[in-house]
Amino acid sequence: MDNGASESEGSGVMVEPQALRADARRNRDLIIAAAKAVFAERGADVPMEEVARRAGVGVGTLYRRFPDRDALVREVAGDSFAVLLARAREAEAEGGRGWESFLGCLKDMPELWFTLRLTLFSPDAWPIVRDDASVRVTARELRLVIDGLVRVAQAEGTLRSDVGTGDVLMLVALVVTGMRASSGALGAVVHERVLALALDALRPGSAAPLPGRPLTPDDLEPRV
Amino acid sequence: MDNGASESEGSGVMVEPQALRADARRNRDLIIAAAKAVFAERGADVPMEEVARRAGVGVGTLYRRFPDRDALVREVAGDSFAVLLARAREAEAEGGRGWESFLGCLKDMPELWFTLRLTLFSPDAWPIVRDDASVRVTARELRLVIDGLVRVAQAEGTLRSDVGTGDVLMLVALVVTGMRASSGALGAVVHERVLALALDALRPGSAAPLPGRPLTPDDLEPRV
Repeated sequence: MDNGASESEGSGVMVEPQALRADARRNRDLIIAAAKAVFAERGADVPMEEVARRAGVGVGTLYRRFPDRDALVREVAGDSFAVLLARAREAEAEGGRGWESFLGCLKDMPELWFTLRLTLFSPDAWPIVRDDASVRVTARELRLVIDGLVRVAQAEGTLRSDVGTGDVLMLVALVVTGMRASSGALGAVVHERVLALALDALRPGSAAPLPGRPLTPDDLEPRV
Repeated sequence: MDNGASESEGSGVMVEPQALRADARRNRDLIIAAAKAVFAERGADVPMEEVARRAGVGVGTLYRRFPDRDALVREVAGDSFAVLLARAREAEAEGGRGWESFLGCLKDMPELWFTLRLTLFSPDAWPIVRDDASVRVTARELRLVIDGLVRVAQAEGTLRSDVGTGDVLMLVALVVTGMRASSGALGAVVHERVLALALDALRPGSAAPLPGRPLTPDDLEPRV
């Protein structure tokens, strides 16, 4: 199935510039959505043709927009971090209940799992993403917003007081990243279940003191 | 440094059979301990010479005992599972406080981390280990003993009631496995910290119901 936009781009038919821009934007959104789905299922080294097929656009349209796979991976990672950042800012704006709202979004959002798998711990994709200025800025902003959520949540008593933002990010990243290896027969519900379980570790009232000191966002800086 | 045992094996000097067996046993133990340390630091694809050097035995001694790396990996995995199984049985014998004792051992024992990294989620090593009958028997026995610990702990109220043994094993495996990727600058204390944090998720009194149903040991059967 082709959505028609690529045909209008390629056919030489005269169209209004504004309609062209809207077509290009729609194609871009279709490609990113398809790439997220295909990457999450089969990894970022899937053939570009598979992404085009899933998006319902021609291969030529895909390559005009993203000249190679690295460009597509960077755009997908940037888009995923941006979605996460928007969600974190919504939680920030909610104030008091922001932490629980953000935890809920972590539990529900396959988006996050994908972003972390693709970037934070993937030896294949992270080198492609790491040097992208836009991704770096968004990721850093995301860490700062989450750091604020952590402090508010600790002040209001909904998050245990002996962890830092680095602990939270590390715990989520470890659980989410390992999930790639356990996909398949066990299914998505197991992922949701184990992530929800891990996040329960963050509720107040520890059984015993944790070793070491609370980890800061900067403790993760060499990686993210 | 050579511990001398390999020289007595290789020198043709006449020695008592019992002394020879003791030498062979000591060499085997030195090799396994060295292999665990080297694999944990550098992965299971390290040169065999490096293992011999660390063990303080000759390369010939190493190859007489383990004709190839696969044989060594299988022995290391079997040995690690056996140590874990022994620890789980001690916890079982302790009765009432057994669960907390077992949690403590999970937090303290780098052995476990290594075993899981090497086998449960390592794409390189697991195929080597999977078909070893001895490893399979020990791993299955370990799952059954942990399953018993889980039930006792839930009955006595030291473990949340809405998880199954499969949840516990999956959570630990995910956190431990991801740690390989985060070694280095952050150091071992971060691993201890995040594992201790994750295990706190298992204390009674969940914030919200978990999705799905408790996972059984058999839910993990396709993997372990």
